[in-house]
Amino acid sequence: MAEHLVASYDAELKDLKQRILTMGGMVEQMISDAIKSLVERDSELAAQVIARDHEVNGLEMAIDDKCLELLALRQPAGKDLRFITLALKIVTDLERIGDQAVNIAQRALELAPEPPLKPYVDLPRMATRAQDMVRESLDAFVARDSARARAVCARDSEVDALKEQVFRELLTYMMADPTTIPRAIRLILISRFLERVADHATNIAEMVVYLVEGRMVRHTLA
Amino acid sequence: MAEHLVASYDAELKDLKQRILTMGGMVEQMISDAIKSLVERDSELAAQVIARDHEVNGLEMAIDDKCLELLALRQPAGKDLRFITLALKIVTDLERIGDQAVNIAQRALELAPEPPLKPYVDLPRMATRAQDMVRESLDAFVARDSARARAVCARDSEVDALKEQVFRELLTYMMADPTTIPRAIRLILISRFLERVADHATNIAEMVVYLVEGRMVRHTLA
Repeated sequence: MAEHLVASYDAELKDLKQRILTMGGMVEQMISDAIKSLVERDSELAAQVIARDHEVNGLEMAIDDKCLELLALRQPAGKDLRFITLALKIVTDLERIGDQAVNIAQRALELAPEPPLKPYVDLPRMATRAQDMVRESLDAFVARDSARARAVCARDSEVDALKEQVFRELLTYMMADPTTIPRAIRLILISRFLERVADHATNIAEMVVYLVEGRMVRHTLA
Repeated sequence: MAEHLVASYDAELKDLKQRILTMGGMVEQMISDAIKSLVERDSELAAQVIARDHEVNGLEMAIDDKCLELLALRQPAGKDLRFITLALKIVTDLERIGDQAVNIAQRALELAPEPPLKPYVDLPRMATRAQDMVRESLDAFVARDSARARAVCARDSEVDALKEQVFRELLTYMMADPTTIPRAIRLILISRFLERVADHATNIAEMVVYLVEGRMVRHTLA
């Protein structure tokens, strides 16, 4: 293969990585804004998060097309083939993280007119953890760094523990005063949406371990 | 390419389709058994569903490997390339449908020692709908039938409507008697897990429409 074609292939792989990081940054921001819209009862911000879903879907399709083009025209083998097919799977996770941000923003819209049940502490904390996991899983992917990916998998239990804490606390509110139930349920759902974000990040990280180390470790880390 | 190699490639694609249908049948059965374990308070069956998760993960990895092998050795182009890359994405959805069955079975285990809150009617109905959607989405995939895939997308709102109905009904139980809250919450979660199964089926169906008809319809059907 001529030198300029090789260079161009490397450039294309680099471009693919960059696009995935850009998409990751976008869905991370959506999670952050969705939680901000909840805490600050900012319905306009919630509506913006919901509107951004369209953009995320566009990025997913563009990256899919890029991967297909690389597979068709470059016919990669070995580690490049695995990298590109993993990119195809990862963008699906990223798109669904965007969906979770939309779910959170929708609950924030419903809660905005109601009096706040309590100051929100654990949900923003869960959100920060989940966002970190998304960023770290993608950094591990582009660096093909399985140690970093394993560290993401290990953090999943932190998010699960916070989710249980949110649930137990809201349960006491509901038992003490049934009028809080509709609001408490929405907050419980938000904690589940954040758990799903962390699950997606863990899925990405497990696939990265698989990419780097081979098949046997996958689905045994979480 | 020699005649026998062409025949063998077709046989490999057929084998790939068959494996995906087998995996689909397995996760469908897991959903069915998870709901049965809830309704019949059968903890042994619930434990069996949880144990089967391992098998599903094994199928996913085997199909992934098969897809990579086809991409590397056959270097498909055009519609075969799109079909195989879509298979890679679909098995991820199927694996996560298996995860939802496990989530349901875990809640069934927790609920088994408690007195039943009410006869379960809507949850089994939701489960049947969601299972049908999974089967139909896979049939649409192997047949490359976009009309059938569109029909799956249209059914997603039925499952959402049942989920809302379950939620409203359980809300009245909780408001009337706070001691029902922990059980009611578990049932609400089960309805959300079934909703996620339907979402996965819808995702598969949307990707099939994309495969068959091209890019513009995706993410606009549900």
